[in-house]
Amino acid sequence: MEQELIRLGSNENLLGPSPKALEVIKNNADQLHIYPVEEDWQLAEKLSAKIGAGITKEHLLIGNGSADVIRMIVQTHVMPGDEVLFPLPSFAIYKRLTHVHRGVIVNVPLKDHHIDLELLLGAVTEKTKLIFLCNPNNPTGKIIKHEPLEQFLKKLPEHVLVVIDEAYCDFVEDPDFPRSAELVANGHNVIVTRTFSKLYGLASLRVGYGFGHLETMERVRSTRHVSETGIVAYQAAMAALTDEAHEVNSLEMTINGRNYLYQELDKLGLNYLKSEALFVTLIDLPMPPAQLVAEARKHNLIIRHTDVFDMPEAVRISIGRQEDLEKAVAILGQILK
Amino acid sequence: MEQELIRLGSNENLLGPSPKALEVIKNNADQLHIYPVEEDWQLAEKLSAKIGAGITKEHLLIGNGSADVIRMIVQTHVMPGDEVLFPLPSFAIYKRLTHVHRGVIVNVPLKDHHIDLELLLGAVTEKTKLIFLCNPNNPTGKIIKHEPLEQFLKKLPEHVLVVIDEAYCDFVEDPDFPRSAELVANGHNVIVTRTFSKLYGLASLRVGYGFGHLETMERVRSTRHVSETGIVAYQAAMAALTDEAHEVNSLEMTINGRNYLYQELDKLGLNYLKSEALFVTLIDLPMPPAQLVAEARKHNLIIRHTDVFDMPEAVRISIGRQEDLEKAVAILGQILK
Repeated sequence: MEQELIRLGSNENLLGPSPKALEVIKNNADQLHIYPVEEDWQLAEKLSAKIGAGITKEHLLIGNGSADVIRMIVQTHVMPGDEVLFPLPSFAIYKRLTHVHRGVIVNVPLKDHHIDLELLLGAVTEKTKLIFLCNPNNPTGKIIKHEPLEQFLKKLPEHVLVVIDEAYCDFVEDPDFPRSAELVANGHNVIVTRTFSKLYGLASLRVGYGFGHLETMERVRSTRHVSETGIVAYQAAMAALTDEAHEVNSLEMTINGRNYLYQELDKLGLNYLKSEALFVTLIDLPMPPAQLVAEARKHNLIIRHTDVFDMPEAVRISIGRQEDLEKAVAILGQILK
Repeated sequence: MEQELIRLGSNENLLGPSPKALEVIKNNADQLHIYPVEEDWQLAEKLSAKIGAGITKEHLLIGNGSADVIRMIVQTHVMPGDEVLFPLPSFAIYKRLTHVHRGVIVNVPLKDHHIDLELLLGAVTEKTKLIFLCNPNNPTGKIIKHEPLEQFLKKLPEHVLVVIDEAYCDFVEDPDFPRSAELVANGHNVIVTRTFSKLYGLASLRVGYGFGHLETMERVRSTRHVSETGIVAYQAAMAALTDEAHEVNSLEMTINGRNYLYQELDKLGLNYLKSEALFVTLIDLPMPPAQLVAEARKHNLIIRHTDVFDMPEAVRISIGRQEDLEKAVAILGQILK
């Protein structure tokens, strides 16, 4: 009999989709033949109310996942030869999309696994068009805090647009995490992107969003299709926003899961990066990371070699339910014993 | 009491979604928290079997609707200053996307509402990067036939990629409609795009695809995200492909609906373009088209002013069920009496 896979490779919310969203999908699926009309603006309005800081639905743009929003930003901002600046290791799509648009990729390293804003600032030139900041950073799980980020933005030349990718913002415990809507409201040239894929457990519904200044968002909107997202997806996303129980449970699973994993990794004598996200990354491994991933796979455990994020020396483990993590720890113990 | 809307403005399949697809969505919605793994290739494989002519899954690329596939094509092919050539009136996104990428829009007019391939050929220059052919053309409903298209492709310089947008190909009755897969297989520099939005009634599932030469598709794939489409959408699309009853019913509705509409429009003394698509377009109207659309809306009938397709003199009516068309005809009769 085939054993069930322990899916800790893709930062999926293993509690499952928001039950309120599921109910809407099942009830409304028979509308899938029609295109959305007002639903994108309805969702944008509900999101703007949640975001606050004066962000309105017109500041928002909804996409087919936040990766799609990021693609639309690159598509409408990066011309051949423009410089796109971001730290490495970080999420893989900034590099890929810049390459597609024949932009010039400029990277600065992390400092002790944290994004180094000073170094980034030093790398800005007249040609810098975009800066990507993944916060918390994938795959290190570390955050940039509000005060240093605001100082950084104040020093940036006006022609540089900063995209803050907050895919994992919902899992942050640190009270000094940036109040990014405030940064937009205060006039900084910033777009913040977020997703329904993680906290709400809707990775395959494909709903993400971004918000920034009206003129900037108008420009990004120029490449957006009216039916970028389907009617049922909008309706389900709206339902997820009201699903407080699922939200609380997901956050609790993540925080407890991180702490449990730290404790067990300590017992195994493994080094890791404390994380504010839906994953924990293991470093200084006692065997080649690719080998560890392959061995884990033989035990039906999926974890992620972070080479795709330009961090070839590490392995990322998503936070799952307690039972998933217990199985994962047992398997790691077996492999490394 | 608010009357129900008669939705004949957006070329939606008013029979509703494929019931087999619906069943899969309801059964599998609890997987929406996970990302697809192999499902995109599975769907591509099933599509390639259906397409034939030696097209394999590697020749295929699936997107968030065929509009997304078209966006990825423009994104990976059009650099500032490149010329993008297409007839007008035609579907609106070719113009919009070319503009976003700062390409040069080159348009040629239709001839008696048909795409004029001679005129297109004459407009090709060394800078022409893409040609868009919407076949059947939206909003005129007319087709280019196989033989003239093949002759056209033979005369085209090699550096020009032709995108044949076949969103409405499933509704064509003419036996001389292009066997476009054959054109790809015969080495012509062509990408064909199609959608699950129309025949399968899945507009809001957001699944479309394109196929072309391996190297061309590889280039387009460079901007595609692994999770361009969600796992349940892939599964539902695969189910729709097996739903022969829904397919037959949808085609029957469309063909009968077109014939019924011609007959009733004749009685009303209205001129129209005979169509091979899911819509019929009215021309030589006895009142301004915008006014006709607005009057219809007051009677809860939604039809489309084709000004957005650069055909300001016409109005497009989607084919719906017999009952929808009867209501629409009655309303038009009332307005125009």
